[in-house]
Amino acid sequence: MKQSIGAKTLAFPTPTWVVGTYDMNGKPNAMTVAWAGICCSNPPCVSVSLRKATYSYAGIVENKAFTISIPSEDYAKETDYFGIASGRDEDKFEAACLTPVRSELVFAPYVGEFPVVLECKLLHSLEVGLHTMFVGEIMDIKAEESVLDENGNPDIEKIRPVAYSPGNRSYYGIGKSLGKAFSIGKEC
Amino acid sequence: MKQSIGAKTLAFPTPTWVVGTYDMNGKPNAMTVAWAGICCSNPPCVSVSLRKATYSYAGIVENKAFTISIPSEDYAKETDYFGIASGRDEDKFEAACLTPVRSELVFAPYVGEFPVVLECKLLHSLEVGLHTMFVGEIMDIKAEESVLDENGNPDIEKIRPVAYSPGNRSYYGIGKSLGKAFSIGKEC
Repeated sequence: MKQSIGAKTLAFPTPTWVVGTYDMNGKPNAMTVAWAGICCSNPPCVSVSLRKATYSYAGIVENKAFTISIPSEDYAKETDYFGIASGRDEDKFEAACLTPVRSELVFAPYVGEFPVVLECKLLHSLEVGLHTMFVGEIMDIKAEESVLDENGNPDIEKIRPVAYSPGNRSYYGIGKSLGKAFSIGKEC
Repeated sequence: MKQSIGAKTLAFPTPTWVVGTYDMNGKPNAMTVAWAGICCSNPPCVSVSLRKATYSYAGIVENKAFTISIPSEDYAKETDYFGIASGRDEDKFEAACLTPVRSELVFAPYVGEFPVVLECKLLHSLEVGLHTMFVGEIMDIKAEESVLDENGNPDIEKIRPVAYSPGNRSYYGIGKSLGKAFSIGKEC
């Protein structure tokens, strides 16, 4: 029996990604987002939604660029810190003891210690309400060699990314494999 | 040492959600998506990206409505089937032995057996490229009583949703809790 929960932002799972930007003075900033996702295969695009009030918002608008750094479980605390503090008040990379690396493709920094990063050029901005949705074209993905599989692709089991649960506002690891897509459903 | 992977749609994790629509004849249809995410807190909105070639695309455009049904691990096979077959050729609900339930709020069906569903009214369409991004306002969320926590909110550990990994094109369960958001980062 289903119960009405109301009009809320509850959906499972959502990602836990860190958006990297430079501010007006070229200071690197980082902000954790869960309102985000891949949104197009060709050109390869990803969207992130930010409130105008965030310090990162101006960085994206100004530079028309951002990165997404995908944390491993090992960096759950630092990732949460990036979602609590504001780059307006402090140097978040310095406070988290993490390294801002300047992308060679877009004017935005990424988190050097995180295993996978996406370098994005701003393609579209859509005003949705409290949040503005930024669509970025993925210009390149860079990944640590240690998380690549035998075909040279990033392997989720080696990355050990973080999922976010909006209900209890908690982070989760990735669990066991449930099977191959475009395959296990053929038995239906 | 980071290696360039190229401009690809690789990000981790992505969701595994089933979009429900009616076709021009009122036949219920369902399609699995991973290019999707929450995109605004107020109004509460979610976005899903579909190729124009899909049968569901016309259903959303026609009815300006869709649902998102969130599967539990137990329905990984049926969910994968929804991503393989086309509603143009068959009645996917019937083939998967799942029940289309008509939303009372929007003209779209959801999967009766799945633990959590979002009922969405189309707010925006954005042409990104191969995919069109549809932004839907979440009018209500309905959840099985069996997946609610003591506060009446859907509990990710009871839902046991499915994450998708674009790299190896595989489904994964949700793993162990890594801690509370807006909390564990304070120790940084």
